[in-house]
Amino acid sequence: MIYFNCDYNEGAHPAVLQRLTETNFEQTIGYGNDAYCEAARELILTKCEQPEAYVQFLVGGTQANFTVIASILRPHQGVLSADSGHINVHETGSIEATGHKVLALPSEQGKITAKQVRDAVLDHWRDGSFEHMVQPGMVYISFPTEVGTLYSKAELTELYAACQEMNIPLFIDGARLGYGLTAPENDLTLPELAALCDVFTIGGTKCGALFGEAVVITNRNLQRDFRYLIKQRGGMLAKGRLLGLQFEALMKDDLYFTICGKAVEQAMTIKAAMLEKGFACSAEAPANQQFFILPNAALKQLEEKYVLEHIGRVDDKHTNVRVCTSWATTDENVNAFIADVMAL
Amino acid sequence: MIYFNCDYNEGAHPAVLQRLTETNFEQTIGYGNDAYCEAARELILTKCEQPEAYVQFLVGGTQANFTVIASILRPHQGVLSADSGHINVHETGSIEATGHKVLALPSEQGKITAKQVRDAVLDHWRDGSFEHMVQPGMVYISFPTEVGTLYSKAELTELYAACQEMNIPLFIDGARLGYGLTAPENDLTLPELAALCDVFTIGGTKCGALFGEAVVITNRNLQRDFRYLIKQRGGMLAKGRLLGLQFEALMKDDLYFTICGKAVEQAMTIKAAMLEKGFACSAEAPANQQFFILPNAALKQLEEKYVLEHIGRVDDKHTNVRVCTSWATTDENVNAFIADVMAL
Amino acid sequence: MIYFNCDYNEGAHPAVLQRLTETNFEQTIGYGNDAYCEAARELILTKCEQPEAYVQFLVGGTQANFTVIASILRPHQGVLSADSGHINVHETGSIEATGHKVLALPSEQGKITAKQVRDAVLDHWRDGSFEHMVQPGMVYISFPTEVGTLYSKAELTELYAACQEMNIPLFIDGARLGYGLTAPENDLTLPELAALCDVFTIGGTKCGALFGEAVVITNRNLQRDFRYLIKQRGGMLAKGRLLGLQFEALMKDDLYFTICGKAVEQAMTIKAAMLEKGFACSAEAPANQQFFILPNAALKQLEEKYVLEHIGRVDDKHTNVRVCTSWATTDENVNAFIADVMAL
Amino acid sequence: MIYFNCDYNEGAHPAVLQRLTETNFEQTIGYGNDAYCEAARELILTKCEQPEAYVQFLVGGTQANFTVIASILRPHQGVLSADSGHINVHETGSIEATGHKVLALPSEQGKITAKQVRDAVLDHWRDGSFEHMVQPGMVYISFPTEVGTLYSKAELTELYAACQEMNIPLFIDGARLGYGLTAPENDLTLPELAALCDVFTIGGTKCGALFGEAVVITNRNLQRDFRYLIKQRGGMLAKGRLLGLQFEALMKDDLYFTICGKAVEQAMTIKAAMLEKGFACSAEAPANQQFFILPNAALKQLEEKYVLEHIGRVDDKHTNVRVCTSWATTDENVNAFIADVMAL
Repeated sequence: MIYFNCDYNEGAHPAVLQRLTETNFEQTIGYGNDAYCEAARELILTKCEQPEAYVQFLVGGTQANFTVIASILRPHQGVLSADSGHINVHETGSIEATGHKVLALPSEQGKITAKQVRDAVLDHWRDGSFEHMVQPGMVYISFPTEVGTLYSKAELTELYAACQEMNIPLFIDGARLGYGLTAPENDLTLPELAALCDVFTIGGTKCGALFGEAVVITNRNLQRDFRYLIKQRGGMLAKGRLLGLQFEALMKDDLYFTICGKAVEQAMTIKAAMLEKGFACSAEAPANQQFFILPNAALKQLEEKYVLEHIGRVDDKHTNVRVCTSWATTDENVNAFIADVMAL
Repeated sequence: MIYFNCDYNEGAHPAVLQRLTETNFEQTIGYGNDAYCEAARELILTKCEQPEAYVQFLVGGTQANFTVIASILRPHQGVLSADSGHINVHETGSIEATGHKVLALPSEQGKITAKQVRDAVLDHWRDGSFEHMVQPGMVYISFPTEVGTLYSKAELTELYAACQEMNIPLFIDGARLGYGLTAPENDLTLPELAALCDVFTIGGTKCGALFGEAVVITNRNLQRDFRYLIKQRGGMLAKGRLLGLQFEALMKDDLYFTICGKAVEQAMTIKAAMLEKGFACSAEAPANQQFFILPNAALKQLEEKYVLEHIGRVDDKHTNVRVCTSWATTDENVNAFIADVMAL
Repeated sequence: MIYFNCDYNEGAHPAVLQRLTETNFEQTIGYGNDAYCEAARELILTKCEQPEAYVQFLVGGTQANFTVIASILRPHQGVLSADSGHINVHETGSIEATGHKVLALPSEQGKITAKQVRDAVLDHWRDGSFEHMVQPGMVYISFPTEVGTLYSKAELTELYAACQEMNIPLFIDGARLGYGLTAPENDLTLPELAALCDVFTIGGTKCGALFGEAVVITNRNLQRDFRYLIKQRGGMLAKGRLLGLQFEALMKDDLYFTICGKAVEQAMTIKAAMLEKGFACSAEAPANQQFFILPNAALKQLEEKYVLEHIGRVDDKHTNVRVCTSWATTDENVNAFIADVMAL
Repeated sequence: MIYFNCDYNEGAHPAVLQRLTETNFEQTIGYGNDAYCEAARELILTKCEQPEAYVQFLVGGTQANFTVIASILRPHQGVLSADSGHINVHETGSIEATGHKVLALPSEQGKITAKQVRDAVLDHWRDGSFEHMVQPGMVYISFPTEVGTLYSKAELTELYAACQEMNIPLFIDGARLGYGLTAPENDLTLPELAALCDVFTIGGTKCGALFGEAVVITNRNLQRDFRYLIKQRGGMLAKGRLLGLQFEALMKDDLYFTICGKAVEQAMTIKAAMLEKGFACSAEAPANQQFFILPNAALKQLEEKYVLEHIGRVDDKHTNVRVCTSWATTDENVNAFIADVMAL
């Protein structure tokens, strides 16, 4: 079977594996205080143009999300998120397990707006019984979103202005940041994105690493004691250098963007073929995840050879399906898939 | 510098790295449901002689500890542990962060006794105001303990009998299980240990893997929905096969025991030299961690070349120091260290 | 000013105060283990026709809700509730503070249906990635609901059948139980309601007591160690007899129902007048809480003399307002209010 | 039976009950925002000479303790406390249930010292692996302590200086504050105590009220959003005025101190008799709680008529027993007890 269901089916980019292999017997101190982590941090700060940001590496995305959120909120505060947000639906209540409510906002195409944030905060304070309700304490978005869409520079600028006006931090989950930034439609650079939030992550797991997420805290008020939280919540890797080595390899010579950009191109090729074949997209997704409404018969036929992800039932005869490329996707598989689609 | 401070200074055993490399471009499903995890599970069940046990792989030890404990306890229950236990002192309150008190028992040489467990439970119920106190809900020990000691078969048998009599589960943290089981003094086999508790871990991080702990739940009543907890608490690796591959490589042909046994031998060689030189041990530690009371002058001299871990101040002139070997320790380094000790 | 905004503006029914006064200097043991609590328990069990139920008294409603819910759920489980449910909107995230997600279901008139519960549970298990989502672990409803509506016997019977079929407990928050059961439209008796759930509360605070909620756990599997949870979460009153005395006074000779019934009659009189005057109800509320859509001008005029609760803005010219009677409402105030409404 | 086991066997001082009765049918707004709470606040601020302090009323002591602590600490911080402290032993892990570790310090006579606090904080930062340990985030003491002892002005001054030097807040649990301040040995005034901490409670439950604890937050940095925490953790009484009325009655004309002072005198009379009879005290307790080591035979005889609290077994023949007076203790009962002791 050929897997197009997600972007974590393979191991790591060979450059990453090579670094792990060639440094294998070096001795370093643990917990992310080694020279490789330091070098990776420097590379990230430089690329983000955020010399005073604070960078830590965690193993996984769920971990990164709840550690960041638990670190920022006071006990009576919640996090505003699109109702379709990953933290609201697919992390088994990990935010609530830290004691905080996810304040879900209805979303179009996986995104929330500056107006929604402003209204949520103002409505909270306007209500006479505000102490009886969870106080909005921060905003969570992802880039790309859960349905593969992107915030434009204008949208993010407005959203962050609203956050600053409302005095609540903005956190961008960048589990697929590489695919978002290299999407043709995207008009945000990494430094721009870094400047338009208080904390964000650079996802490694889905973008060429074996595993790992870099948390970048640009807001100095949110940096204090963050490593305690990482340790307490289980995110501190004993052999922390494994994370530093991977991010160093990915950031060096912009490998991260090169390999993600390639995957986006492949996704665009698939999208074009699907549209040509007459299948509709269920979301305006310009990056490596594509969502199609497929007739069940066609889907069944494709699934003899390909693994695709079922997002949901559309009606009796159609299913919403995700097709995903990654840094590891081969042109051969893309071509085979397109040929089989065309032959349906 | 040569590191003897801990057993996670290097990467992974070459056999582990090789498996990661040679399977790198295979596509598998995620989250530990792949064939490599399945194979590793089978190997573990066979070696433990526990065909009905439930095995899951987590990334790290802190994670494994709090996930197991949070999975078992009801909200008003706490976990009995030696006061020196890892969960009580070196995990940044991770157990408390899940809502549970660590009920610390005074310990000799890092161990607790059957009598202590029985008394703690009986005392709880004997007190008229038991509802005002945390109810003992499980017992946590580690093998080897935080100070490197081992429970004998007789001690563990008694301890587990007390747990069963008191109707509370026993959890053995085996972060260094390989070193404990291969210690010359040890009289427990893996199947015996597996039969003398309700849940235990087989540590990979310190025993040849890049990272990873296998949680083995032998008590069928404690297996339900455990994977939800892993996901919620951040321990579910997207590319779960990385864990399966590592444990498969380690369990195959007993590599795990071979490499750990070698490290214990090296530790014994060091211990013999230290004793010969006249330095005292601060704990009866028969495995890969050795604890010595060193004159500060000697320590300072050694630290020009070696990294050792300071456990604590003994008096104005002496320091309690840990010397640690691992699967990656070379005979060359051991010999150099011994020569330098002898030359002090 | 005359208050019609809520049902906790006054102290307690005189019969309650009298009992507190006449027993004031008696000495009893604390924490709800005294003879008055025992007597109140017996009265409640008899009235509920649930001889094996377990009854405990807590001070307040928020407390009762989160204590019951935290006692029942495992860490990865959440509680299904109408999106308008009290625990979802007006308790400052108290459920999330115990680590659990409120799984909000869209609701018509504040109620959820058997089908919604069945679908929520079945959908959870049907989804291949169920471990990535919060598991539905119980159902919360209130009687009356947050918008004053009532479940009919048929609705509750179906809902509870769905819960039993799905194997999740049903919890009924009865903060205003007295008003619900005495509503003319209601077709449920107390024993019937008690038999159609696993745990419910009998609200005292809003129904004649100074404060206090009786938690009645009919499902024997959910009774164990409940008092630990009460203590841990701050709900165990030192002078527990104060709760027993109040509930004994309220249950004796059905005082609870007599005084609540009177308040419902007054509410119906007000409702009739409002409808006659041409104001619409915003919810089909048959008990002591009535919700009207009032023109802002009329509202402003009424608010010169009466305190009403603003539920929300309807449009530029109308506001949704709650008018509430209670056991303490005087006919004099009701008549004055109606006269003023008629004179608008 | 006559109860000397604790100080919450009766109801409330008649002046308190009278106020509840005479205001019973007044209508006020809820949740502690009424005029009676305001008046009680003013009285407290005046008596404490802390015009800028923030005062809120909660129902019970466990609630007050965990609400204050959860409000102050960040997730990775713990609270330093005497190992015998109430929060460490008799509140069913309520602090841990909010996610925080109680960092227990060995105590003599229930007290901790400035040196212990300074060492705990300095040791934390001195240890290279501080991120692996819970960070001391505040200090909890009680006045009187769990074993009835008092901090002198000198001791408290030193302790608070250490807290300020270490930059961590000091919280004084004053569940029995009235008895402590009126003890003949005490050399602290209420304004002095208020100035020597960041937050403290004035206990009502044990000192003349039906229930209720006033939380006084003198440190302005700790006041923000405290009412959210009260609501979330179940401590916000719907009919909040009940708390205001009680504290107003107690603070007016210093009733609080008059009635507590009387109880301390009675306790001193009992203590003198016990010592005269040859029984030893197990703690230097100068207030309303007295601890005696009684021969079991004598104890058994006394318990035919009196209820005393067993603190613990001393040896085969002796038990440590608490004898407690309160605002409600009658001279008649004191005299009877002394006569019976003398007749042993």
